[in-house]
Amino acid sequence: MSESPRIIHRRTGNFLEDFEPGQVFRHKGGKTVTEGLFATFTEFAMTANPLAKNAHYARAYGYEGLVCPPGLAMLVAFSQTVEDISENARANLEYIDMRFGAPVYIGDTIEVETKALNVRPSSSRPNLGIVHVQSTARKNIGSDDEAVVMSWQRKVQVYKHDMDADLHPGDVEPDEVACDLWLPDYDPNADYGARAHLSSPDSYFEDFETGTRIEHSRGRTMTTEHIALTAMLDNTSQVHCNQYMIDLDPKRYVGGELIIFGGIPFVLCLGLSSPDIGDNALGDIAYPTGRHTAPLFAGDTVFAATEVDGKRDFPGRPDLGIVDCRLLGHKFERDEGERHDDAPEGWKKTKIFDLERQIALKRRSHYAS
Amino acid sequence: MSESPRIIHRRTGNFLEDFEPGQVFRHKGGKTVTEGLFATFTEFAMTANPLAKNAHYARAYGYEGLVCPPGLAMLVAFSQTVEDISENARANLEYIDMRFGAPVYIGDTIEVETKALNVRPSSSRPNLGIVHVQSTARKNIGSDDEAVVMSWQRKVQVYKHDMDADLHPGDVEPDEVACDLWLPDYDPNADYGARAHLSSPDSYFEDFETGTRIEHSRGRTMTTEHIALTAMLDNTSQVHCNQYMIDLDPKRYVGGELIIFGGIPFVLCLGLSSPDIGDNALGDIAYPTGRHTAPLFAGDTVFAATEVDGKRDFPGRPDLGIVDCRLLGHKFERDEGERHDDAPEGWKKTKIFDLERQIALKRRSHYAS
Amino acid sequence: MSESPRIIHRRTGNFLEDFEPGQVFRHKGGKTVTEGLFATFTEFAMTANPLAKNAHYARAYGYEGLVCPPGLAMLVAFSQTVEDISENARANLEYIDMRFGAPVYIGDTIEVETKALNVRPSSSRPNLGIVHVQSTARKNIGSDDEAVVMSWQRKVQVYKHDMDADLHPGDVEPDEVACDLWLPDYDPNADYGARAHLSSPDSYFEDFETGTRIEHSRGRTMTTEHIALTAMLDNTSQVHCNQYMIDLDPKRYVGGELIIFGGIPFVLCLGLSSPDIGDNALGDIAYPTGRHTAPLFAGDTVFAATEVDGKRDFPGRPDLGIVDCRLLGHKFERDEGERHDDAPEGWKKTKIFDLERQIALKRRSHYAS
Repeated sequence: MSESPRIIHRRTGNFLEDFEPGQVFRHKGGKTVTEGLFATFTEFAMTANPLAKNAHYARAYGYEGLVCPPGLAMLVAFSQTVEDISENARANLEYIDMRFGAPVYIGDTIEVETKALNVRPSSSRPNLGIVHVQSTARKNIGSDDEAVVMSWQRKVQVYKHDMDADLHPGDVEPDEVACDLWLPDYDPNADYGARAHLSSPDSYFEDFETGTRIEHSRGRTMTTEHIALTAMLDNTSQVHCNQYMIDLDPKRYVGGELIIFGGIPFVLCLGLSSPDIGDNALGDIAYPTGRHTAPLFAGDTVFAATEVDGKRDFPGRPDLGIVDCRLLGHKFERDEGERHDDAPEGWKKTKIFDLERQIALKRRSHYAS
Repeated sequence: MSESPRIIHRRTGNFLEDFEPGQVFRHKGGKTVTEGLFATFTEFAMTANPLAKNAHYARAYGYEGLVCPPGLAMLVAFSQTVEDISENARANLEYIDMRFGAPVYIGDTIEVETKALNVRPSSSRPNLGIVHVQSTARKNIGSDDEAVVMSWQRKVQVYKHDMDADLHPGDVEPDEVACDLWLPDYDPNADYGARAHLSSPDSYFEDFETGTRIEHSRGRTMTTEHIALTAMLDNTSQVHCNQYMIDLDPKRYVGGELIIFGGIPFVLCLGLSSPDIGDNALGDIAYPTGRHTAPLFAGDTVFAATEVDGKRDFPGRPDLGIVDCRLLGHKFERDEGERHDDAPEGWKKTKIFDLERQIALKRRSHYAS
Repeated sequence: MSESPRIIHRRTGNFLEDFEPGQVFRHKGGKTVTEGLFATFTEFAMTANPLAKNAHYARAYGYEGLVCPPGLAMLVAFSQTVEDISENARANLEYIDMRFGAPVYIGDTIEVETKALNVRPSSSRPNLGIVHVQSTARKNIGSDDEAVVMSWQRKVQVYKHDMDADLHPGDVEPDEVACDLWLPDYDPNADYGARAHLSSPDSYFEDFETGTRIEHSRGRTMTTEHIALTAMLDNTSQVHCNQYMIDLDPKRYVGGELIIFGGIPFVLCLGLSSPDIGDNALGDIAYPTGRHTAPLFAGDTVFAATEVDGKRDFPGRPDLGIVDCRLLGHKFERDEGERHDDAPEGWKKTKIFDLERQIALKRRSHYAS
């Protein structure tokens, strides 16, 4: 090699001015769900639903085998979009109309594409703007069981690269994507009751009451494990894994340390809530909106709560009901100031996550009698 | 959601007064052994036995494939009982008559039930008592290869919830559970010698001598990884994963930090001993008694030793012998006081684990000649 | 057990005087590649090549399924040799003529043997010497798809145990080992273009230019996770996992803390380079030489760069070309002294890894048109 090679810095990801409404990204890679990935995330999040833990149980319900919990399906699908959409983002602002379709099994391969809907400048910060996109995740493309597994929109705050570049104008409507939760048929001859002891006795549709808030009892302290977890998801954003970059300019980054990828508290809050509200779910139908409201760091302990906003029948499925609720995540920070919340003396409670959630829950009348 | 939702705190786990002799818990969940779980724990513990590492070797011996080492089978089965039996425990006091049955393979699903045998108050601490239970783990219930994989009793120190509650009296005898180590037949025509180089040359039945103590050479430093490992086992006890709870009242908790789940040093000591004493085992037959004798924390380095207490023939199996031994775990703590043990200057040696162990070992005469 | 058992310390690994030129070690254990092992290492290293991530893609190219990236094949094969060859080593000095053969799939079982070629004393340090060995890794020995998967030599600096022992003389030539990269046939009727969006658009053979240096954009901070990763590979060297041993005599060990196993930065540098240079590879052909040039510790952030040294046709394969390059790893250390490199103020850049590398790359003309 010569003394002075030509140096090449390949740019990765897109900047604000690169996005054009109507443009479609077919994301690289794709991802086959291995038993390693499945075990790591299902169990990291302390998911309690036996559909994700007990293959005999899952098959008795009409699934092909262990079912990825919604948080894992979401992590795999979402992360495929990071390099193209949010590698150069400052923050993910909002999840919109996130819906689940076909179940994801071990061995399935997920591929994702994203359409840019709208790009607009920040009113207050000239180096930032908001990109609104719609993503669709499919499994096993080209095979007999090709299916849409997820569809969602999100708004993300992205940096400009060239301050003088013009943004692409336009406003594209989201596509109509058929993405409805696949459910196994109810079999009136099946002896579901024989396995009822494997899920919580008090988390059937009948057990929830509108206007209540369930404080999930368990907390989980995060460690630097988040770096490896994030890499495992192919999330390549450097703010999650490159401490040197942060050390070079700590003031530029929130907290001056690696920030935990939002997908981690997302799936962890779902997991912490699962013994109380997810154990008898056949699936999450949709997350109409969702936001991360504060950053999470190694050392923080994550808690979750669920507010039950409403209950309704599941059309065409008398064995099921829908619970509309709000999944909230929080942590506690040391704080000697005046108290404004229900945190203990010397602490304040910080909300980190807020997700609207529609769950398809089994009725005790049909599954545990 | 209204301004003031009704707050619900679901209680999890049972307290001392909830246990009733004769009562049977059919534990929730169940757990399918994925390749992710298998790899994580087998390799975390540095298990050396090729039955757990080399599928060709395992099949040549008559197993269906890679075999879960006893420590992993134990972790999976034991952890299923935590929510019902020891979520509100202060300590696990004793393992009793832990026996192994059918081998556990990748893909097998374990379900566990536990019978309460006896409940008694603590003589010195009114808020505590001891629960004595018997647990049985089965695999693939309802299928053709349903089998008992483990059976054990344990005594656990559990908190009372209501100080005024009466305890349930009674004393129930443990069930007779058929749980004998399954062993592949010895095939006199098989060329076991062709694979003898894959296990240690000096850990056959003939190599052990009663009255010796083997100091296993390797140590392993634990990190905060224990939090994720414990979650992966569905062990929901908060003292292993909720640092905020401990920060609120550090004096209440040993060491004022997260304590490592006892199953972790249990499986790690088995692994550390495996190159010397487990490499030519066809299985562990039983652990008549076992105890954790000191807590373990992130940062501690774990060591193990084996005391050989006796050797005997394996009835009906001239190719095997039984070694009765004691597996001991220890760590070193900085200590400037007077030395009472064989620890180096400035350190003391703390025993953390003590397990009676019966191992079914191959004879060199039959497998390596 | 009697009061004073006879204490046995089993020695593990070989010392300088134990090696004899011509001697062959058939290493213990062997290792089946589970989905857990595959996922952990492929994703830890942030490998981007879809052959290791997307089973549909891999099968469309003519592979049986997900393909172990070269770094993982190397880690599994290399680690099998550690106990016999380098458990008592001070450093691994050099990798020589490392070549890849058959692809390694999930479910394959790797077994390795090593021949000692030469042993010589250190000229300056009487307690050390250099052992030169040749290793060959095969998969599925005894079955229909038995094949050589890797072959390599290495030089390792090993401690003497008995200062007075003589070394074994002799100089043995390396064996001729047939180990050429297996490649799927090019199918002129296949629609490779339909999947071209799944790999980088700008990393085909045509895209590289001799005399350039690509600074790979991503960095990855290492944590104490390295202890578990190293155990997972069966690497038993205590300098990677026994902090107590180091605390007893910190000056004896570089940095006074656990050093990260060299295989970790090896695979991580390959992974960091993969979006830019590995994404359209059908495989790595060979690593003619390689060295670790500085130690790595938890907390360090790893970066990589590739210098393109040459390009050439792949004999008999007009669809492919060979890129000869050099993969370099580095980290930054705080340093207030005079600057001698391109590191930012207050930092110095330390090279940690240097690997000659020959990659078989797809041509855009054949795969993306």
